Amino acid sequence: MKCKVTVLDGQKSSEFYVDSGTNLQKAILENGLQINAPCGGRGTCGNCKAFVSGNVSDITNIERKKLTEEEIQSAARLACQTFVMGDATVHIEQKKSAHIQIEGLDYQVDLSPLVRRINISLPAVSLENCKDDTERIIQSIGEKKLKFIPEALSKISNVINGEDQDLVVTCTDDFIIDIGTKLKETSDYGFAVDIGTTTVVGYLVNLVSGKIEDTISEINDQTYYGADVLSRVSYGKENPDGNEILHTKLVEQLSRMLKKIVDKKGISKENICCMSFAGNTIMMHFLMGLNPFRISVSPFTPVTTASLICSAQDLGIEYHPKCLVYLLPSISGYVGADITAGMLACSLTDKDKIQLIVDIGTNGEMVLSKNGELLSCSVAAGPAFDKTISPLVPISTIS
Amino acid sequence: MKCKVTVLDGQKSSEFYVDSGTNLQKAILENGLQINAPCGGRGTCGNCKAFVSGNVSDITNIERKKLTEEEIQSAARLACQTFVMGDATVHIEQKKSAHIQIEGLDYQVDLSPLVRRINISLPAVSLENCKDDTERIIQSIGEKKLKFIPEALSKISNVINGEDQDLVVTCTDDFIIDIGTKLKETSDYGFAVDIGTTTVVGYLVNLVSGKIEDTISEINDQTYYGADVLSRVSYGKENPDGNEILHTKLVEQLSRMLKKIVDKKGISKENICCMSFAGNTIMMHFLMGLNPFRISVSPFTPVTTASLICSAQDLGIEYHPKCLVYLLPSISGYVGADITAGMLACSLTDKDKIQLIVDIGTNGEMVLSKNGELLSCSVAAGPAFDKTISPLVPISTIS
Repeated sequence: MKCKVTVLDGQKSSEFYVDSGTNLQKAILENGLQINAPCGGRGTCGNCKAFVSGNVSDITNIERKKLTEEEIQSAARLACQTFVMGDATVHIEQKKSAHIQIEGLDYQVDLSPLVRRINISLPAVSLENCKDDTERIIQSIGEKKLKFIPEALSKISNVINGEDQDLVVTCTDDFIIDIGTKLKETSDYGFAVDIGTTTVVGYLVNLVSGKIEDTISEINDQTYYGADVLSRVSYGKENPDGNEILHTKLVEQLSRMLKKIVDKKGISKENICCMSFAGNTIMMHFLMGLNPFRISVSPFTPVTTASLICSAQDLGIEYHPKCLVYLLPSISGYVGADITAGMLACSLTDKDKIQLIVDIGTNGEMVLSKNGELLSCSVAAGPAFDKTISPLVPISTIS
Repeated sequence: MKCKVTVLDGQKSSEFYVDSGTNLQKAILENGLQINAPCGGRGTCGNCKAFVSGNVSDITNIERKKLTEEEIQSAARLACQTFVMGDATVHIEQKKSAHIQIEGLDYQVDLSPLVRRINISLPAVSLENCKDDTERIIQSIGEKKLKFIPEALSKISNVINGEDQDLVVTCTDDFIIDIGTKLKETSDYGFAVDIGTTTVVGYLVNLVSGKIEDTISEINDQTYYGADVLSRVSYGKENPDGNEILHTKLVEQLSRMLKKIVDKKGISKENICCMSFAGNTIMMHFLMGLNPFRISVSPFTPVTTASLICSAQDLGIEYHPKCLVYLLPSISGYVGADITAGMLACSLTDKDKIQLIVDIGTNGEMVLSKNGELLSCSVAAGPAFDKTISPLVPISTIS
């Protein structure tokens, strides 16, 4: 039997239908609505409180521990402990989103983007100059080791006509990935994203000047499946397609944020030459669609900590699928690519100084450097200090 | 108005519907039937003769030149010069397919396939051995430069469990492209294809022994769009989607031939680790989906003569899309990758001998080698000697 669920959130009202016996919190999340679930639906944080009328399962002892007698009288429930048994109406009240710190000190970095645009003038073919198109293009660029990817090859037939032509070639270190007639004078941009457990911050970087021209920040859409990484790992383990859902939520959010910043800036997505992503190791796993479960149990083994260059499409980022993407390397299961990025930005490999990086986020990490030697460790932070959540066992690793 | 066309070929009968005014030869080809068209539909060879009754366009002077008075009395027409105006019935008679030479002298080559399978034993993880999966795999193989492609990464989560495991890793020189639990003892095969203008011959090669274990040969499906490469190039130029049609015909045929030989041998397509393709430069262009038109006009410039490594999917070969494919390099517009393959097989770079390769096919090529210097040339052959076709202007290039 299908049950009608009406969700009221402030001025907004939504309706959807679910099977009898469906978990209320899951139903709300799966229908694109949001409800806080920092503990990942285990009934330990009490943050998914909602006022429910209609045909639902009886209140449990877990809920009685988290709700006051007055709340219970007003029909308050924990959505994660409630099952829809017939038509029901749910009042939820979302907390305002957190303030996200996205500014910091300026620092100088050498620009060396993943992707370069090279302007070339290709002379007309003649009996004396009748080499094939790819060879003439590579000669014009002057880098013999470059190879065409199949898609760039396909474009040549449409672009090159054998006459004198001004062309713009898009290359990585090793490959020619695109070719076209000369663009109007527009800038090339990169989109660099810090994927935090709680917040996702994207930076639109001018790849010619190196300046950050715009930023965008949002609460990580995965937050509704658990506030800390371990809650999300257990959501991934305990729910069918759980990891797939968390992966999809993240890449859809990245896709949406890229579109927003591109639209706001008034540029075309083709102006975005490349993207780079950093985050903790578990976020990097969700991003790549990898199962992070073994990071959560001893001896805390990631699938990979290596860097990766691939297309946005390979990750499932559909808004700009052909865009080249760089995923920074992580260090261990609990010292992630965000720390690698920080070490790079702060020149932590500088041998003349003793330096310490401290990153206190949802997880906390430190890296100490001396004489080019680096020592890192990590510990649960953020929600571990939230009085509404029973403290997690701190996990620390030394790499 | 839709017109019903009935095609009778020996015992077979087919029906399809076309718009009034559709060219009869094109309609037959586009509906998956075959009719000879060595001249590419220009009315010069007379090979698309058919006996037509019903509502079609009037006979033309071009046809009167190619048909005898007796044939005209019996309602013979050239399909390429005939347009369907209403319902019509067409009798066609296909010539038997040519005998294809697929055997030759055995010669010794050093095996060095594009793809290797490596068996590794991955020890269980522990607090002392808790490196991430990718690092432990690369360590077991002992080749530090290897990198995982995104798809192989995704498979790790499903395959590796942190216990002692025997695994089989599939690698190219640079990349790990697949990983799985140990296969049963089956052989690895390669599928090497010689894409001739007239005939396509595939060889199933045991990658462990180097032996050719089976062969398959078919008339090139493109033959029905023109017997020689220049007729096909002009078919590609003169018909909307002409090049796309020729590309699709070829990759569908390669896909079908691979499936046939795999089924016949009783192996799984996963046993095919890699494929390699060689053919003349225009065939290589059609294979890659590149427009070969500029090879047909002075100064005869190909889009590319370079070798290419890509996935079968990149080319549109859908039967075994993930299979890695190697396209041999060509030399110039009229000295193709088939000649490169021949030079390799005959050790033409051997500096101690004076050697000559002569390849007389639909096109003819020669390569002379002396002291490591190589000189090649080419000329139209095959249909150029067919009395039913007006000779083409021979084209020769020296590279």
